[in-house]
Amino acid sequence: MAIRARLLACLDHVFPAPSASAHCDGPCGVYDPASARIAAEAVLSMTRKLLDLDGSAPDAHNTFARYVSIKEQQAEIVKHELSVLWGDYFKPEHLEAYPELHTIFWKALKAASAAKQQLSVEVATELLDQIHAIHDIFWATKKRDVEWMLANP
Amino acid sequence: MAIRARLLACLDHVFPAPSASAHCDGPCGVYDPASARIAAEAVLSMTRKLLDLDGSAPDAHNTFARYVSIKEQQAEIVKHELSVLWGDYFKPEHLEAYPELHTIFWKALKAASAAKQQLSVEVATELLDQIHAIHDIFWATKKRDVEWMLANP
Amino acid sequence: MAIRARLLACLDHVFPAPSASAHCDGPCGVYDPASARIAAEAVLSMTRKLLDLDGSAPDAHNTFARYVSIKEQQAEIVKHELSVLWGDYFKPEHLEAYPELHTIFWKALKAASAAKQQLSVEVATELLDQIHAIHDIFWATKKRDVEWMLANP
Amino acid sequence: MAIRARLLACLDHVFPAPSASAHCDGPCGVYDPASARIAAEAVLSMTRKLLDLDGSAPDAHNTFARYVSIKEQQAEIVKHELSVLWGDYFKPEHLEAYPELHTIFWKALKAASAAKQQLSVEVATELLDQIHAIHDIFWATKKRDVEWMLANP
Amino acid sequence: MAIRARLLACLDHVFPAPSASAHCDGPCGVYDPASARIAAEAVLSMTRKLLDLDGSAPDAHNTFARYVSIKEQQAEIVKHELSVLWGDYFKPEHLEAYPELHTIFWKALKAASAAKQQLSVEVATELLDQIHAIHDIFWATKKRDVEWMLANP
Amino acid sequence: MAIRARLLACLDHVFPAPSASAHCDGPCGVYDPASARIAAEAVLSMTRKLLDLDGSAPDAHNTFARYVSIKEQQAEIVKHELSVLWGDYFKPEHLEAYPELHTIFWKALKAASAAKQQLSVEVATELLDQIHAIHDIFWATKKRDVEWMLANP
Repeated sequence: MAIRARLLACLDHVFPAPSASAHCDGPCGVYDPASARIAAEAVLSMTRKLLDLDGSAPDAHNTFARYVSIKEQQAEIVKHELSVLWGDYFKPEHLEAYPELHTIFWKALKAASAAKQQLSVEVATELLDQIHAIHDIFWATKKRDVEWMLANP
Repeated sequence: MAIRARLLACLDHVFPAPSASAHCDGPCGVYDPASARIAAEAVLSMTRKLLDLDGSAPDAHNTFARYVSIKEQQAEIVKHELSVLWGDYFKPEHLEAYPELHTIFWKALKAASAAKQQLSVEVATELLDQIHAIHDIFWATKKRDVEWMLANP
Repeated sequence: MAIRARLLACLDHVFPAPSASAHCDGPCGVYDPASARIAAEAVLSMTRKLLDLDGSAPDAHNTFARYVSIKEQQAEIVKHELSVLWGDYFKPEHLEAYPELHTIFWKALKAASAAKQQLSVEVATELLDQIHAIHDIFWATKKRDVEWMLANP
Repeated sequence: MAIRARLLACLDHVFPAPSASAHCDGPCGVYDPASARIAAEAVLSMTRKLLDLDGSAPDAHNTFARYVSIKEQQAEIVKHELSVLWGDYFKPEHLEAYPELHTIFWKALKAASAAKQQLSVEVATELLDQIHAIHDIFWATKKRDVEWMLANP
Repeated sequence: MAIRARLLACLDHVFPAPSASAHCDGPCGVYDPASARIAAEAVLSMTRKLLDLDGSAPDAHNTFARYVSIKEQQAEIVKHELSVLWGDYFKPEHLEAYPELHTIFWKALKAASAAKQQLSVEVATELLDQIHAIHDIFWATKKRDVEWMLANP
Repeated sequence: MAIRARLLACLDHVFPAPSASAHCDGPCGVYDPASARIAAEAVLSMTRKLLDLDGSAPDAHNTFARYVSIKEQQAEIVKHELSVLWGDYFKPEHLEAYPELHTIFWKALKAASAAKQQLSVEVATELLDQIHAIHDIFWATKKRDVEWMLANP
C-alpha cells in the first residue's frame, strides 16, 4: 500500500475527514501581469541603452556584452511570465469571452523573441503594447479596475 | 552615433559588405520534441514511484519530499520546452496547416500543471500523449519520418 | 595592447569621440518594488493554503511538499529583489534622507527568511508590510505618487 | 525520537510493514543521451552560425554576443547531462564491461569546455561524436537497439 | 482541521511530545565567507584576463563575450553570498558589536555591481578587500582564528 | 567573410599583432575545492538536522520538506563543483601522477547522489571524506600547503 494512502488512513484513524475540499487549480493564485511588464520595460530600456551606447566610453565593450545578456535574460523572464499566465491563469471560459486570447499570447511570445534577436525600440515597444492588452483582459476577467502604469515611463 | 553603427562603419572601412545576409529567426534552429518527451517521461516515472512508495522503507519521507520536488522540476522543464516549440518553432504557415495547434499546446501546458498538482498516472500519461501528438505534427512540418520512442517504456 | 583599447582606437580612427558620456550606474534602470510585492503575496498565499490544507484530500502530501517548495522559491525571489533594490537602486543621498533604510531592508530580509522557516500568516503579513514601507520610500525618492495595490487582496 | 521514526511508527500502528522494498538508486530512472545530444547539436549549430555571421547585417553585434551566450549555456547543459549519465546511470558492472567509460566521459567533458572556448566546427563535431559513442554504450547496456539520429542533420 | 495539526495529533497519539525544541534559525548553519571570496577571485581574474585579452588571438571575440558573461555570473554569486551572510547569519548582537556592519555589506554589494559594470582591477580588488573585512568580522563572531587565503594569489 | 575575421583584420589595420598569446584553457583559473566542501558540509548538517527533527515542534512538516529540498540543492552544488574540478581543472599529467583520480571523483559523485537519496550521517561524512581526498590531491598539484578546515566542525 502506498505511503499516501497509509498516511491518510492513519490520520482518519484519529479524525474524521472534513466534508468538503476546495479544488486548488494553481500553485498560489497570485497572478499579476506586472511581472511580465517590468521585465518588458527592462528589455525596452536595455534596447535603448544599447542603441545609444557610446563606443568611445571606457568599458564600452564590456557594457555592450552585458547589456545584450541582460536584455536576453529579461526577455526570457517575459516569456516565462507570459507562459504562466496563458497556461495556468486563463481558463476555457476566458477563451470564450476573449477568443483572440491564444493569438495575443502567441504574438507576445514572438515579440519577446524578436526583441532578443534585434536591437529595435519598435519591437520592444510592441512587446510592451501586447502586455498592455493582456493586462486589460486579465483585470477585466477579475472585474477589477487596475490602471496600467510604467516604472520607467 | 551608436557603437554598432560605428563598428560596422569601421569594418566597412576595410572590407565591403557582402551582398546578402540570411535571416536568422531562432537562436540555433535545433528543435526536438524529445526534450519535452524525456522530461514528461520523468514526470510519469516519478508519479508512479510516488504512488508505489513504501511508507515503511527507511528514508520514506526524505524520498517522498524529493520525488515531489523532482516531479515539479521535470514538469517545469516540460512547460518550458513546450513554450519554446510553440512560440519559437511554429510559424503562421504551420498554424494554417494545423489549426488545432494552439489548442494542443494549451492543453499540454495545462496537463503539465495538472501533473504537478496531482499524483495521477492518467494525467501524466495524457501529458505524454499530447507530446506525442506534437511530435507527429513537428516532424511532419519538417517532412521527416521520426519514430516516437520512449527511453523508459 | 588589450583588445578593448585596440578596438576603441580602431573606432576612433574612423569617428571622433563624442564629447560626453553619461554615467550608467545600473543595468537597466527599471526598478519596481512590485516584483518583491508579487512574490511576497505568493508567500502569504502559500502560507494560508498550507495552513488550510485538508489532510484527507487526494494528493494532500504531494500538495504539501510542493506548496512548501513554492513558498521557499517565492521567498527567495523576495530576498533577491530586495537585495537588488537595496544594493543597486538606493544611493548615499537616499540614505541621508531615509537613515532607517538599512534597518528596513535588514528586517525585510529576515522576515523573508522567517516566512520560509515558519507557517505563519503573521510573519508573511509582516514581510508584506515591510515591502509596503519600501514601496513608499522608493516612489517618494522618485517623486511619483504610485498607489500600493495587491494582486490578491 | 526523530520525526521519521515516529511517523513510520504511527503508520505501522495501523498497517503492518510490507515484506520487501525495492532499492531505488536514481531519482526517476529516465536516462536518455538524447538530452546531451540535442544540446551538443545546438553548440555545433551556434558555432557554425557564429563563424558565418555577416558583420554588416543589422544587429550583428547583438547577435554575436547572444550566440556566444547561447553556445555557452548549451555546452553547460551538455556537461550537466554527461555528469548525470556518468555519475548516476553507469554502475561498476558497466565499467567492467566498458573499461574506457571514464576516459570517454572525461574527454567528452573536455570537448564541451573546448567548444565553449573556441569557435571550431571540428571541436563541436568531436563533442557530438563522443556523445554518439556514449549513446552506443548506453543503449547496449540497456540491450535496446536505438538508432542515432540528429534533429538538425 | 489542517493537515499539520492532524498529523501531529496522529503522532502524539503514539508518542508524547518531547519537552523542549531548539529554535532553528537558519537552513543549515553552514556559513563560510569563502564562497563569496572564491567568486570574487573569479571576478578579479576575469577582469585581468579581459584587460589582457589579445585582440589578434583566434576566437578573441568569442572569448571576450564569454569572459564578460562569466564575470557577470561570478559577481552575481558574490552578491547572493553576501546577501545570505548579511540577512541570515548576522544577528542584532553582532550589529551592536560591529556597528559598521550594514555599511560594509552595502559597500561590498555596490563594489560587486561596479565590478560588473567596469573592467577595473582596482574595483575588483576593492571588492575582495571588503570580503576580507567581512571574513575577519565573521570569524571573530565565531571566536575562531581562520586565516585569509586566496586560491589564486 | 565572417565577422570575427573582419574585425581582427580591422584591428590589424591599426595595430600589428602582438608576438605571443598565452593559451587560455579555463574560464578564470580560480579553482578551489572549498566550494564543494562548503556544500558538502551543508548536506551533512541538513542530514543531521533532519534526523534530529522534533515531530512535535510547530511547523515540523514545513521544516522537513524544506530541509530535504535544501539538502537536495546542496548535494547538486557538490556534484556540479566536482564535475568542474574533474573535467576542467585536472589534466592528463595529473592523471598520470594520480591514476586513482577518475575513481575518486566517480565515487564522490555517487556519494553525493546517495546523500540525496538517504538520510545517513555516514554517507554524508563519506562524501566529505572524498572531498578531503580531492582537496589533498588538488593542492598537491599546485604545490601549495593548504590546510583542510571545516566551517562547521
